[in-house]
Amino acid sequence: MTPSRRSWWGWGWADSALSDDQTEKLAASVRTRFGVEVDLTPLPAEPHDDDLPMPHVSVPDALKAFSSADAYERALHTYGRSFRDVVRGLDGDFSPAPSFVARPRDEADVTAVLDWATSTGTPVVPFGGGSSVCGGVELAGAVSMDLTALDRVVEIDRTSRAIRVQAGALGPVLEDQLRPHGLTLRHFPQSFEFSTVGGWLATRSGGHYASVYTHIDDLVESMRVIAPSGVVESRRLPGSGAGPSPDRLFLGSEGILGVITEAWLRVQDRPQWKASAGVRFAEYFSGVEAVRVISQAALFPTNCRLLDATEAATSAGVEDGTALLVLGFESADHPVDVWLDRAIAIARDHGGVVPDGVVSSGPSDATGQEPAAGRDGAVGAWRNAFVRAPYTRDALVRMGLIVETFETATTWDRFPALHAEVTDAVQAALKEVCGGIGWVTCRFTHVYPDGPAPYFSVFAASRRGSQLAQWAEIKAAASEVLVRHGATITHHHAVGRDHRPWYDRQRPDAYATALRAAKATLDPGSILNPGVLIDP
Amino acid sequence: MTPSRRSWWGWGWADSALSDDQTEKLAASVRTRFGVEVDLTPLPAEPHDDDLPMPHVSVPDALKAFSSADAYERALHTYGRSFRDVVRGLDGDFSPAPSFVARPRDEADVTAVLDWATSTGTPVVPFGGGSSVCGGVELAGAVSMDLTALDRVVEIDRTSRAIRVQAGALGPVLEDQLRPHGLTLRHFPQSFEFSTVGGWLATRSGGHYASVYTHIDDLVESMRVIAPSGVVESRRLPGSGAGPSPDRLFLGSEGILGVITEAWLRVQDRPQWKASAGVRFAEYFSGVEAVRVISQAALFPTNCRLLDATEAATSAGVEDGTALLVLGFESADHPVDVWLDRAIAIARDHGGVVPDGVVSSGPSDATGQEPAAGRDGAVGAWRNAFVRAPYTRDALVRMGLIVETFETATTWDRFPALHAEVTDAVQAALKEVCGGIGWVTCRFTHVYPDGPAPYFSVFAASRRGSQLAQWAEIKAAASEVLVRHGATITHHHAVGRDHRPWYDRQRPDAYATALRAAKATLDPGSILNPGVLIDP
Repeated sequence: MTPSRRSWWGWGWADSALSDDQTEKLAASVRTRFGVEVDLTPLPAEPHDDDLPMPHVSVPDALKAFSSADAYERALHTYGRSFRDVVRGLDGDFSPAPSFVARPRDEADVTAVLDWATSTGTPVVPFGGGSSVCGGVELAGAVSMDLTALDRVVEIDRTSRAIRVQAGALGPVLEDQLRPHGLTLRHFPQSFEFSTVGGWLATRSGGHYASVYTHIDDLVESMRVIAPSGVVESRRLPGSGAGPSPDRLFLGSEGILGVITEAWLRVQDRPQWKASAGVRFAEYFSGVEAVRVISQAALFPTNCRLLDATEAATSAGVEDGTALLVLGFESADHPVDVWLDRAIAIARDHGGVVPDGVVSSGPSDATGQEPAAGRDGAVGAWRNAFVRAPYTRDALVRMGLIVETFETATTWDRFPALHAEVTDAVQAALKEVCGGIGWVTCRFTHVYPDGPAPYFSVFAASRRGSQLAQWAEIKAAASEVLVRHGATITHHHAVGRDHRPWYDRQRPDAYATALRAAKATLDPGSILNPGVLIDP
Repeated sequence: MTPSRRSWWGWGWADSALSDDQTEKLAASVRTRFGVEVDLTPLPAEPHDDDLPMPHVSVPDALKAFSSADAYERALHTYGRSFRDVVRGLDGDFSPAPSFVARPRDEADVTAVLDWATSTGTPVVPFGGGSSVCGGVELAGAVSMDLTALDRVVEIDRTSRAIRVQAGALGPVLEDQLRPHGLTLRHFPQSFEFSTVGGWLATRSGGHYASVYTHIDDLVESMRVIAPSGVVESRRLPGSGAGPSPDRLFLGSEGILGVITEAWLRVQDRPQWKASAGVRFAEYFSGVEAVRVISQAALFPTNCRLLDATEAATSAGVEDGTALLVLGFESADHPVDVWLDRAIAIARDHGGVVPDGVVSSGPSDATGQEPAAGRDGAVGAWRNAFVRAPYTRDALVRMGLIVETFETATTWDRFPALHAEVTDAVQAALKEVCGGIGWVTCRFTHVYPDGPAPYFSVFAASRRGSQLAQWAEIKAAASEVLVRHGATITHHHAVGRDHRPWYDRQRPDAYATALRAAKATLDPGSILNPGVLIDP
């Protein structure tokens, strides 16, 4: 069996893409649903040197042992994997390709790349799993520094439940090393298979936990960063009050301040008890109120995702027009039914009903597997769709459709108006640019006592050849509403280059000035990921 | 009745100090316990201009309306309230007095002070409640900017449970404004009465919650800061992933980057259910193990303080030589007995016993008061001692004793060795400098899944006139152990000037350089609290 190979234009493993059969079935359902003709962009041919721009620089001798200017490698590292990226990859447009890809084998290699780049003024883009959806790794002519060779769990402190891990470990590579110890990070962004520890840290990724430990930030004890000016390493601490947190400067720094090479992270015992339920709401805003009260009750659900009726229908098979709240609790220490019962009671106070009942499981059901709660019914359907979504997205892109998401966070008092205006703005844009064929849906991915993190999905017909321009109009309309309403331009997808216009309005100007000054001390040659977050 | 007046040399209200009677009783018990003669430093006379150094500058006309160079005001603002500060205040040594005290009435006044100070190169020390225990507000000749006139809750968002509050509100001033709305911040550092919102933010103070929301950091939605270069205001967000967090630059900035004038903070509904218990451990390290397992069980106790046997005896009246674990849970939403029961079960697995049983109360007991759980028995005794401790400390200082604390945080794997070495180092120092008369005790103030925040108290006989030098030797011995073991020099008491030698070794050098560069953009005249955290 040939080992799996990453797709250079689309999501994940090339051989995990939808089969021709699956794609045809999907196309048929799109035809029925939208009443439009759908034809399929053929799969692109593997890129050759001629299909790529000339490198700005060739691989210097000092970096030859671990660098490549191979066409496939350059294409694979040209983009992240947003809708825009897939459209361009499918089109064979690799104009922003890096000059070459360096894959450091150790920290000395990282330093060698930075030293050479600083001396030659060559931009360097740190590259983890390449799952950016905000243009975070796209820079023509740069050196793409792929960190996935640094993927070891170096140290395990079972007592404190913490690990020292190299930053290039992809999600499954990390979890495979933790499983024999009964440990897990349980940080499962949708990109889990194709994103790395370092990528999570650099982008403040959002993970598995719907509450409390929502961002990777909360799981960090310390970080080790190689900056062009030298090494920055913080102390392993469970908590501290000694000055502003050094880690918090690097969390979310998106590769502009240094290359994250290692971190000490807090891990978990594998959960033994789980309990979950799907709660239906005839009125969406009754569901919103229920989630608000649940999130203010300090019950700390692991899962608390409210899907509006359209999203419940399209991704969880809920056909009665209700909104679906996926509630889940888990623990390695104790049964969690009391917690779930209380959350359900709150939901019922707000008109929620639980047609499929509660699924609860514990170690008595153990077969070496994690408890099964949450794998069945509407909840299970939603989870499967969630993991496969990016592959399905690629197939839909091949049909010339627009399939993209954006997410934000705002306080509860502002959510109803924000939701209405975002929905209106996207629908107006859909009407104007896509003939009104499409929809926008909303789910909560994470919830806080003071507000939700709503995640919007857009699905629309498009004129072939105009997919990007049409999406740009929709995205601009939505982003404008977010920024005007005081919401954030991103809750866990980072800023990159794509979100810059709105991030620049969100972030205090004086903070940008301070960050620029900090960067100048760490990266005096301004080589690291220029254009991301701030201008050099 | 004359209104209460702050003590210019000691803790809190002048009229809340121990009475002559109480002081004499305390002295008698010290005589018995230590077998040493104790005589009492007389209370100092109120300072006059002649007792204070000449101001470096006089109050400029532009600031006259809200500034004072009165001797009492200058003395009151000379120090924080550490052991060192009280010894010097009692001694009438006010040599580092500020030139004058400015008390801004609004943000325009804050700006006026900063503009004048920048133009004249005069250092400015932002001053909240003045409860610093690390030399954070001590700078000879500076302008002390007292922010307590800015003390209003400006906006309440009941839906999101958040408030906009001016930074100068002292703890009780804040809570008085929240009580009519059924809300509370529930951030209760020991200094609660004499510390402000802005002081908490600037020093990353540790509060009421033993787990999860341990630092004020976790309660912040956004901040407003007046820097000499202009206003920095972040957005109110429940969560965000848009670049490094601007707030995290100012949290813990100890007045060196700007003056915090406002913040949006997450508040709580007032708790309706409480449950608590005191668990005794014959073996201290069995208690430590129990706390470790409890803190890794995601039960999120509100209180989880382990007092070693000496501390249990001296401050909670536990006379059988056991260590005391104070466990407490509270909720505004649901009974918490299940949570407490599980924590107690874990404690019992580690040999804990619960001689006084569980105290549990709910809204049925309501009399307009919060539930009573935790007010009685050993738990209650400890709480009362906690609140009165600083006044008792002052009386003991008058007897020429050494009474001081220091705290840290470290991972569980390192705690036993750290505890042993700290204890040994302090005891060796006590033997050398104090004739061995004294003790060091330890309690956990906050706990994390990956480690505890141990808080050490030192109590020792001293040669009169050598209190400060003797304490300096003890403190240096302990701090050296902390830094060598990879622990933090402070968990929630800030860095100030006193912790600088050890903080400088703890903090990555490159981070200091970056912070210095950031400061230069915000405070180009280097007027703000020079000497704290970094050198100008």
